[in-house]
Amino acid sequence: MSEPLKIAVAGLGTVGAGTIKILSQNAALLERRSGRKLVLTAVSARDSGKDRGLSLDHVSWYDDAVRMASDSQADVVVELIGGSDGIARQVCDAAIAAGKHVVTANKALIAHYGTALAEAADAAGVTLSFEAAVAGGIPIVKTLREGLAANRLSRVYGILNGTCNYVLSSMRENGCEFSAALKKAKDLGYAEADPSFDVDGIDSAHKLAILASLAFGCHVDFKAVYVEGIRHISLMDIRFAEELGYRIKLLGIASLRDGGMEQRVHPCMVPSSAPIAHVEGVYNAVVSEGDAVDAIIQEGRGAGALPTASAVVADIVDIGRGNRVPAFAVPAGELRKLSTTPMEEHCGAYYVRLMVVDRPGVFAEVAAVLRKNQVSMEAVLQRGRAPGEAVPVVMSLHETREEKMNAALREIEALDSVVETPRMIRIESF
Amino acid sequence: MSEPLKIAVAGLGTVGAGTIKILSQNAALLERRSGRKLVLTAVSARDSGKDRGLSLDHVSWYDDAVRMASDSQADVVVELIGGSDGIARQVCDAAIAAGKHVVTANKALIAHYGTALAEAADAAGVTLSFEAAVAGGIPIVKTLREGLAANRLSRVYGILNGTCNYVLSSMRENGCEFSAALKKAKDLGYAEADPSFDVDGIDSAHKLAILASLAFGCHVDFKAVYVEGIRHISLMDIRFAEELGYRIKLLGIASLRDGGMEQRVHPCMVPSSAPIAHVEGVYNAVVSEGDAVDAIIQEGRGAGALPTASAVVADIVDIGRGNRVPAFAVPAGELRKLSTTPMEEHCGAYYVRLMVVDRPGVFAEVAAVLRKNQVSMEAVLQRGRAPGEAVPVVMSLHETREEKMNAALREIEALDSVVETPRMIRIESF
Repeated sequence: MSEPLKIAVAGLGTVGAGTIKILSQNAALLERRSGRKLVLTAVSARDSGKDRGLSLDHVSWYDDAVRMASDSQADVVVELIGGSDGIARQVCDAAIAAGKHVVTANKALIAHYGTALAEAADAAGVTLSFEAAVAGGIPIVKTLREGLAANRLSRVYGILNGTCNYVLSSMRENGCEFSAALKKAKDLGYAEADPSFDVDGIDSAHKLAILASLAFGCHVDFKAVYVEGIRHISLMDIRFAEELGYRIKLLGIASLRDGGMEQRVHPCMVPSSAPIAHVEGVYNAVVSEGDAVDAIIQEGRGAGALPTASAVVADIVDIGRGNRVPAFAVPAGELRKLSTTPMEEHCGAYYVRLMVVDRPGVFAEVAAVLRKNQVSMEAVLQRGRAPGEAVPVVMSLHETREEKMNAALREIEALDSVVETPRMIRIESF
Repeated sequence: MSEPLKIAVAGLGTVGAGTIKILSQNAALLERRSGRKLVLTAVSARDSGKDRGLSLDHVSWYDDAVRMASDSQADVVVELIGGSDGIARQVCDAAIAAGKHVVTANKALIAHYGTALAEAADAAGVTLSFEAAVAGGIPIVKTLREGLAANRLSRVYGILNGTCNYVLSSMRENGCEFSAALKKAKDLGYAEADPSFDVDGIDSAHKLAILASLAFGCHVDFKAVYVEGIRHISLMDIRFAEELGYRIKLLGIASLRDGGMEQRVHPCMVPSSAPIAHVEGVYNAVVSEGDAVDAIIQEGRGAGALPTASAVVADIVDIGRGNRVPAFAVPAGELRKLSTTPMEEHCGAYYVRLMVVDRPGVFAEVAAVLRKNQVSMEAVLQRGRAPGEAVPVVMSLHETREEKMNAALREIEALDSVVETPRMIRIESF
């Protein structure tokens, strides 16, 4: 039996409290699995007086998390403060500089500074782990870094934000609009008071950038991710999607293409028969595609105190066992710089909904614009008649380059008979 | 960069050939991920003259796999011969005795002798890995051993045999009986010439015993697994299941219960809304339930040369990286002996189909038998009328102890008006 592994936790929010709870409740089990005791020796949080229901006897309290990271006797510093800059980053830098392993659940930090932190960790000979940063309790980082290590990975995609998935599921199941579904999500604690980070796709983009780096062995490049959120998704589009055999999901998709990669987060129409279409509510799911394994899909809770803490503690057990894997599967110095293909060059199929004045000849105008831009139509659907008033016309369009699609949409929007900005949703055929 | 990792492969069937193909095609990638070269140095197979499309220059050929395991200079011996006894076991024993790590895809071997092999590996200070033994390319062993290491696991279950899942899916989708679906599976190469190992549930039981040991930290106890295959499933039952809102799947289920465990493999009716109901065709899926993570579901190809080889090579990369985890997550000496609850003590809901003579009073007789045995009915369904002839009557029964259910079924079968052995399928409400 080795020496106990000493753990310092910075940040005692829900995930921090969950982590400490697991370390305490499952202590004997964790000791058997790690081959040594896992001992909480230090914590740091803003308010030392707050009752968190945690027993912190014999644990050193630090008001200054950065000082804890450098000065405490811990072997591992667990950063659960959050935020891409400021204290969280200083804690990680200080821990690495002091030769301590770092475990973090901080997706924003890893998305922005993952490569630099991995380089620093490699140089210091310590581990940088962040299983909890992507898809909560689903061990997707381990799957990409280790489980699928035999594979040349070509694509990784998934439902990476439980708030958005809950909102979209709720709109479809309860027949409500975005704002009502979001309000319900807030009432249930599934959405923050300010939900923009989630519903505008930023959170998914952080996670996608991390997955892309793990899958393709490249620098984390969050800034290159194309991001579009779900605010503009209407119940009408969800209903048309069902009619066409699709469900609407906010997906993050990273794929290799001609020496570069695509990284994009946006609402997608996915076939109702695709496994990912059946992932509903707050659940997350990630599909990993490799040359040997074909496709693996993993599904589970993407957030919540205990599922996220499950991932944090798994990283700690790995360190306790003495297992070391580079942060992004290969040494940071060997990570490639991959260019990201701009979205204009994306090729895909499209769903477009127009609101047009219901009068003869309108459709011929639209068709002419599409033909001029070399966009070809697969199907068209008009529901309801209201002569002289606005009615929806829905089209699905064959695979085309996005810049052509955008050019066509701009011209269509300018037509007199088109009364609203056209809605475009990309179709993915998994 | 460390010394190259030297690999010896025993058995050059489809998985062996797939393993060598991945080691060769993805050599540069594997070297970056492992931090060292992975080099095939020795192979052994029955027929050295056979053309397998593999380049084996500079690789030592051994006619005797056991001699290769003890004498070759390899660091890792990969056992892909198969079979629970005989050569396969001798190869593993010899490799461990010679201080070499062992990687195997052999579920029968691990199901029968996993505990003993793990003890020998621990004593010799080598690794025993078998990711490929369960669910092909899905990294479920790693998930249970490492990814969910923070959790007290309470249940693990899944679709563990692609042949059976293909047959059941095909019966439902194509409206054919078992024999026709099995013939199609053979034609497509999804079933062996002698399919009994698969369709009688033995293969699933091997995998389940391994999963149970990983999840619960106990001795592998294959002999205690209750096993029932799918030969008796008829199209009529599949159609009734649909009508009642279920699909029929062959599941392996291991759960902890009152200090013991249940291990059972049998056809189940699962709600059509459950994620596992949507796993169709040759795919496998495993659900792991833990106290922190709730439930994780993983789905992918459970067989095939490259998906299985993906798991074999992942185990090799772990060894190359220097990572060591006990075979069943805790040192073999600390594995618990858990008793398995006999099936008579199982409590669950049931579907029962009777073929009865269509005449007044029959149902009253059946109801009286159920009441006498304290089995209570949830619903009953009769389709079609044919006075004086045999018609199906379907019942769903509330949760009850299996011995009561069996006693009732024996009495029902003895009734004059019941013309066939009653069909019973357990209902699981995930």
